[in-house]
Amino acid sequence: MVEGQNVMGRLERLTGMLRRRGVILPAFEIHGGAKGLYDFGPVGGRLRAKVQDVWRDHWLSQGDVVEISCPTVTPFAVLEASGHVAEFSDFMTVCQACNEASRADTMLEAHHPNPDALSMSELQALLDEASPPCPACGATEWSSIAAENLMFDTVIGAGSSGRAAFLRPETAQGMFTTYPAIYRHFRERLPFGAMQLGRGYRNEISPRQGMIRLREFNMAELEYFIDPEAEASHDFTPWRSTSVHLVPAEGDPFQSTIPDALDNGVILHPTVAWYMARTHDLLHALGIDLDKLRFRQHARDEMAHYALDCWDVELHGSYGWVECVGIAHRGCYDLEAHERATGQRMRAWRNYAEPKIVEIDGWTTDGAKAGPAFRALAGQVKAKVESLPADAAFPASLILENGEEAVVEPEHVRRVQRTESVAGEWFIPHVVEPAFGIDRIIWHIIDHAYQEAGDGDDLYVRMHLHHDVAPIDAAVLPLFEKDGMGEIASDLHLRLCASRGVLAVYDASGSIGRRYARADEIGVPCCLTVDHTTLEDGTVTWRERDTGEQTRLSIDEAIHRLSTRA
Amino acid sequence: MVEGQNVMGRLERLTGMLRRRGVILPAFEIHGGAKGLYDFGPVGGRLRAKVQDVWRDHWLSQGDVVEISCPTVTPFAVLEASGHVAEFSDFMTVCQACNEASRADTMLEAHHPNPDALSMSELQALLDEASPPCPACGATEWSSIAAENLMFDTVIGAGSSGRAAFLRPETAQGMFTTYPAIYRHFRERLPFGAMQLGRGYRNEISPRQGMIRLREFNMAELEYFIDPEAEASHDFTPWRSTSVHLVPAEGDPFQSTIPDALDNGVILHPTVAWYMARTHDLLHALGIDLDKLRFRQHARDEMAHYALDCWDVELHGSYGWVECVGIAHRGCYDLEAHERATGQRMRAWRNYAEPKIVEIDGWTTDGAKAGPAFRALAGQVKAKVESLPADAAFPASLILENGEEAVVEPEHVRRVQRTESVAGEWFIPHVVEPAFGIDRIIWHIIDHAYQEAGDGDDLYVRMHLHHDVAPIDAAVLPLFEKDGMGEIASDLHLRLCASRGVLAVYDASGSIGRRYARADEIGVPCCLTVDHTTLEDGTVTWRERDTGEQTRLSIDEAIHRLSTRA
Repeated sequence: MVEGQNVMGRLERLTGMLRRRGVILPAFEIHGGAKGLYDFGPVGGRLRAKVQDVWRDHWLSQGDVVEISCPTVTPFAVLEASGHVAEFSDFMTVCQACNEASRADTMLEAHHPNPDALSMSELQALLDEASPPCPACGATEWSSIAAENLMFDTVIGAGSSGRAAFLRPETAQGMFTTYPAIYRHFRERLPFGAMQLGRGYRNEISPRQGMIRLREFNMAELEYFIDPEAEASHDFTPWRSTSVHLVPAEGDPFQSTIPDALDNGVILHPTVAWYMARTHDLLHALGIDLDKLRFRQHARDEMAHYALDCWDVELHGSYGWVECVGIAHRGCYDLEAHERATGQRMRAWRNYAEPKIVEIDGWTTDGAKAGPAFRALAGQVKAKVESLPADAAFPASLILENGEEAVVEPEHVRRVQRTESVAGEWFIPHVVEPAFGIDRIIWHIIDHAYQEAGDGDDLYVRMHLHHDVAPIDAAVLPLFEKDGMGEIASDLHLRLCASRGVLAVYDASGSIGRRYARADEIGVPCCLTVDHTTLEDGTVTWRERDTGEQTRLSIDEAIHRLSTRA
Repeated sequence: MVEGQNVMGRLERLTGMLRRRGVILPAFEIHGGAKGLYDFGPVGGRLRAKVQDVWRDHWLSQGDVVEISCPTVTPFAVLEASGHVAEFSDFMTVCQACNEASRADTMLEAHHPNPDALSMSELQALLDEASPPCPACGATEWSSIAAENLMFDTVIGAGSSGRAAFLRPETAQGMFTTYPAIYRHFRERLPFGAMQLGRGYRNEISPRQGMIRLREFNMAELEYFIDPEAEASHDFTPWRSTSVHLVPAEGDPFQSTIPDALDNGVILHPTVAWYMARTHDLLHALGIDLDKLRFRQHARDEMAHYALDCWDVELHGSYGWVECVGIAHRGCYDLEAHERATGQRMRAWRNYAEPKIVEIDGWTTDGAKAGPAFRALAGQVKAKVESLPADAAFPASLILENGEEAVVEPEHVRRVQRTESVAGEWFIPHVVEPAFGIDRIIWHIIDHAYQEAGDGDDLYVRMHLHHDVAPIDAAVLPLFEKDGMGEIASDLHLRLCASRGVLAVYDASGSIGRRYARADEIGVPCCLTVDHTTLEDGTVTWRERDTGEQTRLSIDEAIHRLSTRA
């Protein structure tokens, strides 16, 4: 059997199971569906919620991170400041025969090793030369390539007073726009982080690959604000003996511990290394197979121009290696962009080790004359005058911070020459951002947990999900629904569900073997069977998913075990 | 002091505190803000997450409810089927002087006791007569009133192949469009429920009242599917002695237990009563003051035409009585609407108590002739032929389920007359929906918990939040950051945060009294102080928020107490 065929067969069976069992389904399917949109169904909904919980707990446990939650509808000005209006785009071409839009780079994958690195004119030349068929209708008449912004747009408000807006392409901007509140919350002491779980949107031109490329996705980002001049104080002790798979921007892939790669200068910043290490642990706790995890460093020309270092966490599964997490040192780019656009201070205060003595030679206002002359504006006039150089000449027409103009006469000002002791300065913090594609991570948790044994009609499927993310904690199975077994099982089912953090299903249909198989298929960690012995002595059979091992224990003991493990 | 002024003062102080402390803030404020959009900040983010957790656990504990998660971007066809395209609108008028849009009913509140019950022509007449000033510019030149759909619209996909879509106005449609998967999950046994937490969107014409009327909001809905002919089996024992405040559609408000109001025929359906009772308990667990909670029944002309009974839970706070939950018996409206629009079966199977003997007089196909003639379509032709009445004539041209046409000749069919035993039937389940406005509930949790003592500069604020929703579980306060107290406090802070479900803050600035006040203001349930005695015997002071009571206990004991209470 050719390996490719084998992989495809498994992927189709896995996808079919996820749909049939209500884990992940194409959204709006009864209405014909919508490409790039998925539902988490009656089983998948809790898987998603549990993955989010583990993610949240993992970062909150650092003690210097808070969670926030911002709107997805975002005014134009915010995304203009962040650079998304200008730069969040793909190269698109439209089939002149059927009107279907396609991504130019995707269609040219058979004709170039890495088409998404090409410029628009290079892509155009390649498209003209290769002339690939339209994936929808097979024609080869393509429009000129154009850059298409990938944000969903909408309008806030009604009628002509409505304001242009977009659905956010990432959650990160929320941590930047609320930076002043976060800085206040941490009592103005760096470093600290803020994170957000929520929806992101990307109006893909032609989505494909199931859960890997979605138009609406669950994401989770953490922005960790640091003083670029302060020494980082991360304790790497727990990772000194854990080797990981690293693919550096230059040179060959190698195995190393993360602190060693930092010491050797492959990882460029200790806080980036810290978030790589912590992310490694998180993915392990979620059930990711560590043999299918690698860190890939971005090449200089692959990074945003402002980024200082960037590593993707790639996970291997049915779609090959897929980027699931990006850990980027973004410098001061984002806060600076919002400061420039709004005039608001997006900074932190840093005390000098010693106060600095500064020579002041310039101007100030004469309160007795300037006060009556400028009244409410006197403060702004003073600030403006004090910012002028020593060789300024008066009268002068000055534009104040609020945009108004003030004419300042010689009598309003006086020259100042003195020394001043300055305790510190305002600076723009740098930020290290681990950004997580939750849907892609969930896909790989499932892909790594899904195991088939046998084949054809004898195919047996087990999902080895960790307890922490298994969507259903236990299945309660009455051997028969008679002689009181159904009632005991119902009661046990309800008692389990009433335990905080425990969700059980009740399943009475088919043979016990079929019911075990049904539970194993969606990764239920244990089955509790109520049988004739239960009627006699109040014990149930506890069957472990992973080993098939069966033990008898009392109903109270079974409930206790499940509620303490939740 | 006039009562109204007092209330306004408290509301302004409360709102100011929420903003200053990073609980709830106007969104995108550094960019000038956007009406109707709010952020949950560094403190509020976890309050929101905890409220959602309590909500989720409460309903999952029933054992017959699952959680799902669907996209917010929703194709036109889905919301056309649900009725939102035609009916989700407000009456708008636009100021001809400044172009600002306003809701006609809101502007006419001073001129009519209940303007939102008026028809468009009645509103137009009242607007012409009252001619209220524009709230933005004061002019009185209004455009004709028009119905404005309140959904945010967008487009899925690029270029001319894009499809019209909206941001969902509610999460409920997700439970209807995925009904077939939910029905399968529950092994085709009613009753069962599915729920979803997530964002909803409503492009308000002129939002106001802070958190009460938002353009993007957090909502949570549960759809509970029932067989309308089955006897409901809810156990009301726990609510037989709990009296609640009921405002029926007819007659005077009264106090009663929920089961009594059901028995007396005021509440019209046992499942509606069940969700009223369970919602009452949930709101109590979240910290809502039960004296500020009432159930208000919709009048016949206030309900949607298909609704069989509907009760709002109204909470009283700074904005008066506000609808925070709606509990509606929606009949079979939603599933029927989607079945009609899609042709998919949105039904459940019901076995008759006894099989019914049915006379069949009609047609079927002759397999030997129809098979070869229609090949792959033979099954659809058979289904269609069997649906024809006895007096059908052949040849006949039939439209099949897939839309194709088949010409059926007399030789393809034969007459059948026989009796058949039918075991049951397909029917459309009814649905009872409790729908929660999470932001409004959070607002009232805060409003009910917020207590002021003293006034002016001596004002002391305490938020009596339940442990289950308090965003910060403990504050760790080193008396001084010297002699090792800072290190012990840091270590305690980190150990607390490392306990699952516990979030602590470290606060070292200002006097202990100021730090207690800061913690009380945002509802931190306890403060742990590290002082000189800690250096000697390893104990800390545990101070309770609500009583101010202080006890000394060991660091391990403090950590244990907090991690078991989380």
